[in-house]
Amino acid sequence: MTFRHNKNNIGKYLPILNWLSNYKKQDFNSDVFAGFITAILFIPQGMAYAMLAGLPIQVGLYASILPPIIYAFLGSSTTLSVGPVSIAAIMIASALSAPEIQALGNPVEQAIILAAEGGIILLLMASLRMGGLVNFISHPVLAGFTSGAAILIVLSQIPHLLGLPAQSCGLDLVCLSDQLQHANPYTTKLGIFSILVLIFMGPPLFWLLTRFKIHNHLKTAFTKSAPLLIIIITTVLVTYYQLSEHHNVNVVGHIISGLPSFSLAFITNSSSPWIALLPSAAFISLIAYVESVAIAKVTANLRGEKIAPNQELIALGTSNVASAVTGGMPVAGGFSRTMVNFSAGARTQLSMLIAVAFLGFAVVYFTDQFAAIPKAVLAAIILVAIAPLIKFREIISTWKYDVADGIAQFITLVGVLVLGIEEGIALGVLFTIISFLRRTSRPHIAVIGRIKNTEQFRNVDRHQVETWDNLLLFRIDENITFSNVDYIVDFIEDHAHNNAKLKHLVLVLSSVSYIDTTAIELLTKTIKSYKNRDITLHLAEVKGPVMDKLEKTDFMNQLISSGKIFFHTTEAVKELCQA
Amino acid sequence: MTFRHNKNNIGKYLPILNWLSNYKKQDFNSDVFAGFITAILFIPQGMAYAMLAGLPIQVGLYASILPPIIYAFLGSSTTLSVGPVSIAAIMIASALSAPEIQALGNPVEQAIILAAEGGIILLLMASLRMGGLVNFISHPVLAGFTSGAAILIVLSQIPHLLGLPAQSCGLDLVCLSDQLQHANPYTTKLGIFSILVLIFMGPPLFWLLTRFKIHNHLKTAFTKSAPLLIIIITTVLVTYYQLSEHHNVNVVGHIISGLPSFSLAFITNSSSPWIALLPSAAFISLIAYVESVAIAKVTANLRGEKIAPNQELIALGTSNVASAVTGGMPVAGGFSRTMVNFSAGARTQLSMLIAVAFLGFAVVYFTDQFAAIPKAVLAAIILVAIAPLIKFREIISTWKYDVADGIAQFITLVGVLVLGIEEGIALGVLFTIISFLRRTSRPHIAVIGRIKNTEQFRNVDRHQVETWDNLLLFRIDENITFSNVDYIVDFIEDHAHNNAKLKHLVLVLSSVSYIDTTAIELLTKTIKSYKNRDITLHLAEVKGPVMDKLEKTDFMNQLISSGKIFFHTTEAVKELCQA
Repeated sequence: MTFRHNKNNIGKYLPILNWLSNYKKQDFNSDVFAGFITAILFIPQGMAYAMLAGLPIQVGLYASILPPIIYAFLGSSTTLSVGPVSIAAIMIASALSAPEIQALGNPVEQAIILAAEGGIILLLMASLRMGGLVNFISHPVLAGFTSGAAILIVLSQIPHLLGLPAQSCGLDLVCLSDQLQHANPYTTKLGIFSILVLIFMGPPLFWLLTRFKIHNHLKTAFTKSAPLLIIIITTVLVTYYQLSEHHNVNVVGHIISGLPSFSLAFITNSSSPWIALLPSAAFISLIAYVESVAIAKVTANLRGEKIAPNQELIALGTSNVASAVTGGMPVAGGFSRTMVNFSAGARTQLSMLIAVAFLGFAVVYFTDQFAAIPKAVLAAIILVAIAPLIKFREIISTWKYDVADGIAQFITLVGVLVLGIEEGIALGVLFTIISFLRRTSRPHIAVIGRIKNTEQFRNVDRHQVETWDNLLLFRIDENITFSNVDYIVDFIEDHAHNNAKLKHLVLVLSSVSYIDTTAIELLTKTIKSYKNRDITLHLAEVKGPVMDKLEKTDFMNQLISSGKIFFHTTEAVKELCQA
Repeated sequence: MTFRHNKNNIGKYLPILNWLSNYKKQDFNSDVFAGFITAILFIPQGMAYAMLAGLPIQVGLYASILPPIIYAFLGSSTTLSVGPVSIAAIMIASALSAPEIQALGNPVEQAIILAAEGGIILLLMASLRMGGLVNFISHPVLAGFTSGAAILIVLSQIPHLLGLPAQSCGLDLVCLSDQLQHANPYTTKLGIFSILVLIFMGPPLFWLLTRFKIHNHLKTAFTKSAPLLIIIITTVLVTYYQLSEHHNVNVVGHIISGLPSFSLAFITNSSSPWIALLPSAAFISLIAYVESVAIAKVTANLRGEKIAPNQELIALGTSNVASAVTGGMPVAGGFSRTMVNFSAGARTQLSMLIAVAFLGFAVVYFTDQFAAIPKAVLAAIILVAIAPLIKFREIISTWKYDVADGIAQFITLVGVLVLGIEEGIALGVLFTIISFLRRTSRPHIAVIGRIKNTEQFRNVDRHQVETWDNLLLFRIDENITFSNVDYIVDFIEDHAHNNAKLKHLVLVLSSVSYIDTTAIELLTKTIKSYKNRDITLHLAEVKGPVMDKLEKTDFMNQLISSGKIFFHTTEAVKELCQA
């Protein structure tokens, strides 16, 4: 089912209209099943990622209700599951732990502002059609950032898993080994047990079920229900043995029952929290957008569907504002949930609406049971989900393929761990752009000659070709701009230098489709200085659009006062070698 | 005389050795004449630019002694005249007027630190071979900056020219018209008279002398002596009529006589002024370097000589440190002096050594006479030199040629005027880089087909070519990187979409010499998702270096598991269209 050739403008902005009008009976069955499976993962993740962000559990659950509904209406992906996600959660935790943000008071209010502000930023980017700019968070930067953030997440969950004092030690191993002595044995056992069950119910169970020839959908249902199952088991244990009361096992505690209510209370009188949170909101929403589009594209490509980046800005921006309005945290598309939704056979966003219905039901009727969930099991869920994201081997393989990309990935990872999440990304992006600019400043240029008895011209360094004493031909293989014109002029001069017989230089512009102002300025000066030395500059194979632009310039006056513009390089050789 | 093929390593780092060993008698005569003429301009400029920087006159004179001597030994330009320059002077004035810098005390000490720190920055850049990075100050940014700085210079000199109260009004016209009422009539007359004489002794006098068939060298001597001549005339007037004592005409005042002494007193115990001045030092030295290299290249190209950018970093860095050690302000290559030196026939840097000798002589024997020079005449010299740098028309012509470059030039100009000099440059550079990245994110790609009965392939949109139902050929005309791979993949999908007969996609990589990690990742995913839709991806005309890199990757495994790599596009068509 694909929608991109739809000429209906309303459908462009409300993708739901496209799929609802084509909706079929068999789609419905698939969507209901996928929705049920996704909900099984969605409820524990909503709770766990709220805890990861350092927020009360309901902030995560509230973020799992209206935002996916909004996305179902506005999003261009049929399978993306929008809600709390781990990477955004650790970024929220990091933002809220800054002393100047803590001084602002209640962290829930700050998290809501982060969602609202991030949503507005995405909508602004949509209105300026700036979605393309996020391309500049390159894959190595994103990969380094993800590994770094995953390490931070693992470290942040160790206290919950073992029942240590609340403050995380971060990367401070001395502090951590100190704290380990105070581990709560009951919490630790619950945590380790949960991890083992979760690991077993992953690939090993899947392999077993495959051996017993269980139907694919059932396999998915079994393996993906692991988080919910382990929550139920451990909660029963905690309640039955009263582990919370007698053995200090930390539990989730009281959750306000019922659906969230609408509130605009986050629109504060003072602008200071908004200003203080602006950088974090920008980083969180950008990363949320980049990750969401990447995930959406993975599933869309597998089905030949199209993701509309600008529409995603609108959908994710509105979803985040919706989260804020209903007291939720910032949201994005989650990788594991989306893959579960996709592989469970979701056809449309209806599956997410069904998942939300299950979640809403749980929030209304089961919050009392939620109170006894041990935090250690949520930490275990986070750890098992996150650990595979730590990929040291990928840095090595990136490095082997391309050193600059390897360095970018490495410094982003180290930057995230040592300087902080936002600083690490900023460092990686900066490095990527600088090394990109450096590379573009060394364009490919070839001195070319003619292959005998043909009209073909090739690099003199690689082929046996004819050359001439009074004539040099340069083929410039890239657009000529401020970043590379110096290199080009120097390259020409290196060959023109100390060459007493030289009378003509021809620049073959067959690959050049753009020449900027800086380049024109320098080339004009170059013509003049060669004229001074009785060397004439010519052009050949100039493309139409380039010609149109050149015609308005002083460069052209200088050029045609002595040189020529040849349609083909052959003509240049014919004319200039007789001269 | 050219030196670049010199294999002598000492000569590479001490260019003076190259030209001294080849020095000829007739070179000497030319150099002495050029040195004399340049000195005539050099002395008033040294004084005027110190005043422009808001510093005592001798700080400019001291900067005109050791720095050009050092440059003569280390610089790769035969004619560049290093010393105080107007653009650096206004940047110094702006840096020193910041409240936090004023709080540090004596501005002379801060100016000396600026020179030392800027010099060290240039030397650091030289050791990291980072000279190429200044390419990213594009021509439009430099032009916008120059016009903006020139406007600020003009405004800063109006109080000196008219004898207004010392504080400059900047762009505040109300303040300025208020101050105008307090203009000193004697100062104003001296100022206006100086401007008129300077203007007359420019092009009009040159034209007259040409009509009377005066020898070229004499013409240069006459016209370029205007600043010195008007200084002598007005100083005599001020002394004779005692204008300073009786009519409050501001004069230069007492100047310490004699050559500067060496001092390392600027190496302060506290690092705080160095830290506070770091951003300004970086901006001033970068601009000084960019402008100097640009000027050096103009004269070098006219003679077929070569400027070595990294050697210039060393030469200018050391010159600035030398300026600091002898109590001078930051230095750079000056445009007007260099052009005078060049057109007066300077053959080597010996002409600058001779100019310095004249200047040293003046500093030792004439400082008493300098005391009575009216500041208005120095302001007039600055104004006449600077006014031609204000080029509004250039913005329009840049805009007409390329809108993005026009915007860059305009916002740099406005940024310099409204936000400040450094902020304006930063804004311009940022805009240039963002628009460059945006442009590179839309590479040129063509769907190609075969010209009948040939082996040539051309764009289907522009030529009449054969195409095939089951096969699409894409020629990608740029390196594939993080900035454009999304666009490329989307472009392919736009054509592959809704095309039921399509079986094969061929990417023709004849123009691709680099594929980065981000691109490889996305292309690998793309192969997989097309495989899912029974469409096979192939490559053709892959360059050797690209092939070497690809061989190590998962991309290659994915590709060859179903697709092929063709040496020539013709072979791809032959094989895939039979299939």
